Amino acid sequence: MPSMLDIPADLAPLQDHLAGSLSLVERRVADALRSDLPAVHSLCRHVARYHGKMIRPALTILSALAASPAPLASPNSSTLSPTPDPILVVATVCEMVHLATLVHDDVLDTADTRRGQGTINALHGNEAAVILGDYLFSAAFHLCSSLGDKDTSQSIASVGMTLCAGELLQNAHRHDLSLDEATYFGIVERKTASLIAAACRLGAKHAGAPAHLIAALERFGLRLGVAFQIQDDLLDLTGDQRVVGKSLLKDLEKGKLTLPMIHHLTTADPVQRGRTLLLLEDAADRASDTAEALRRALESTRSIAHARNVAETLVREAREALEQCPPSPARRMMELMADAVVTRAF
Amino acid sequence: MPSMLDIPADLAPLQDHLAGSLSLVERRVADALRSDLPAVHSLCRHVARYHGKMIRPALTILSALAASPAPLASPNSSTLSPTPDPILVVATVCEMVHLATLVHDDVLDTADTRRGQGTINALHGNEAAVILGDYLFSAAFHLCSSLGDKDTSQSIASVGMTLCAGELLQNAHRHDLSLDEATYFGIVERKTASLIAAACRLGAKHAGAPAHLIAALERFGLRLGVAFQIQDDLLDLTGDQRVVGKSLLKDLEKGKLTLPMIHHLTTADPVQRGRTLLLLEDAADRASDTAEALRRALESTRSIAHARNVAETLVREAREALEQCPPSPARRMMELMADAVVTRAF
Repeated sequence: MPSMLDIPADLAPLQDHLAGSLSLVERRVADALRSDLPAVHSLCRHVARYHGKMIRPALTILSALAASPAPLASPNSSTLSPTPDPILVVATVCEMVHLATLVHDDVLDTADTRRGQGTINALHGNEAAVILGDYLFSAAFHLCSSLGDKDTSQSIASVGMTLCAGELLQNAHRHDLSLDEATYFGIVERKTASLIAAACRLGAKHAGAPAHLIAALERFGLRLGVAFQIQDDLLDLTGDQRVVGKSLLKDLEKGKLTLPMIHHLTTADPVQRGRTLLLLEDAADRASDTAEALRRALESTRSIAHARNVAETLVREAREALEQCPPSPARRMMELMADAVVTRAF
Repeated sequence: MPSMLDIPADLAPLQDHLAGSLSLVERRVADALRSDLPAVHSLCRHVARYHGKMIRPALTILSALAASPAPLASPNSSTLSPTPDPILVVATVCEMVHLATLVHDDVLDTADTRRGQGTINALHGNEAAVILGDYLFSAAFHLCSSLGDKDTSQSIASVGMTLCAGELLQNAHRHDLSLDEATYFGIVERKTASLIAAACRLGAKHAGAPAHLIAALERFGLRLGVAFQIQDDLLDLTGDQRVVGKSLLKDLEKGKLTLPMIHHLTTADPVQRGRTLLLLEDAADRASDTAEALRRALESTRSIAHARNVAETLVREAREALEQCPPSPARRMMELMADAVVTRAF
């Protein structure tokens, strides 16, 4: 994530520190997945290529820095001490849970490529992908248990349940054209925001932060996670396919209503609503004129603007939560990340 | 499992005790899966119908009884005290991990029915089944973490990894007609025996058994688990479809070589081997004359008898491991279970 930010010069030492910690996380993921069975090892090595911006481990490390009583949060960031082991472990566990969900998402979406690589299901079949995802989940829980901390283990397992509950809720509402905003937020908080919130909360906790800061960072992660998902939804409708790097209108094609469409369907007049419902039936064809007509419909009810407003409000709330932490380079970096969530074009 | 045994009258009190504990386990599984989201709750209620003979939790409870220093192993089994909480938790966790693998197995096998019920994938689609399996795994880890015992949490997570490694190894060797016995045992120990061994080991451990008895019970579970899988393989080839309750030759149809076939292909003369390889190509049709010809081929090399011998040797080794425990009703029940593994017809 930090790589997509325009980082002010005085945050450069922190950025270097973060990059160093994230490459340690990458190595630890590889270590945790290592197997003496070539059939397992080669699949795990492939998954290692799925690391993207590593937002979740980055937030664990930054939350630890932002919420910690000294010395982690030293204002002179050039003297940052190495990220302590339990924080690296939590960061690694969050990334592994995320990787597991990616492998299973690709099965559910019958996706062929991810980050320019073939997906496990495309290369090795659905069987391998389903089992590998289970392997990754188990390996994440295994690493997490090594901390010997009951609260952390229960948090991560509970996030696993919450993620799945969000996906099951979304699945139950597929093709439900009367999906309301409350249910939408219930889905998004669970399937996207819960892991991001846990990454922040556990980072702060393992840095020895006081309870009110742990809660503030969890709130930051929750708001940020929902904003992140809304921006994803917006990019699916309005993004530039070449920049986003994946085909658009995938949500509608799969029968998933996102925030702009929910707003549109509840605010459009009956005639417009009827017209849009017809367009949605065509969305599976992904004809470019259908896409254009849908965008015009959404504009007519200012539904894109509505979703942007909601995302911006969430980012503001996320930044407010951060204000509980003393000013620090880590806090500033997190504020920049929060802003970037709603301005990113990919 | 005990229901398939011919239980001597003096074990009746133990059998009642076990039945009572297993119904507590069933209730705890339901509690652990309870969700306030109807979309999640209804799927979990469906999975609750997948409880079968509950071999794994039964072995946890019996191992605790057989390996415990007093008072659990009271020779007068009518005074058995209730199964202690941590042992019930471990039993429940093992059953939940097993249920999770069943839900994903049904996706991989595109199975329509299980225990006379529609499978989750048949009733609600592959998406729901993949996510629900992940939910069950996470819920199992969540319950396991509640014990606050690092060794138990790591054991269960490690078993999760091992199960998946076994499945991935099997998947990598599908349609591999030169699969050898060593690799076959490597697959079976991981995908079937590892969870049964952990169920026994953790039962003994949480009963406060000494290290050598914990190790003995783990060995019992490992041998029993492999014997159990070999018997499954045999039933797939030689069982009565009406008794087994599922269609036969499924392993061969899916390109999985099992012990009798591996033995046959390595001991048959070249002409017979060539003939069998041709028959295997037809196995996917499941024509009854192909099945009959395959059975005759296996008889010609005494490969069915070989696999039976191996299973019986494993059961003998399992019983030998049990001899480390003092004589008790629980130990006798486990001996009967071990014998039943290779005599069962379903």
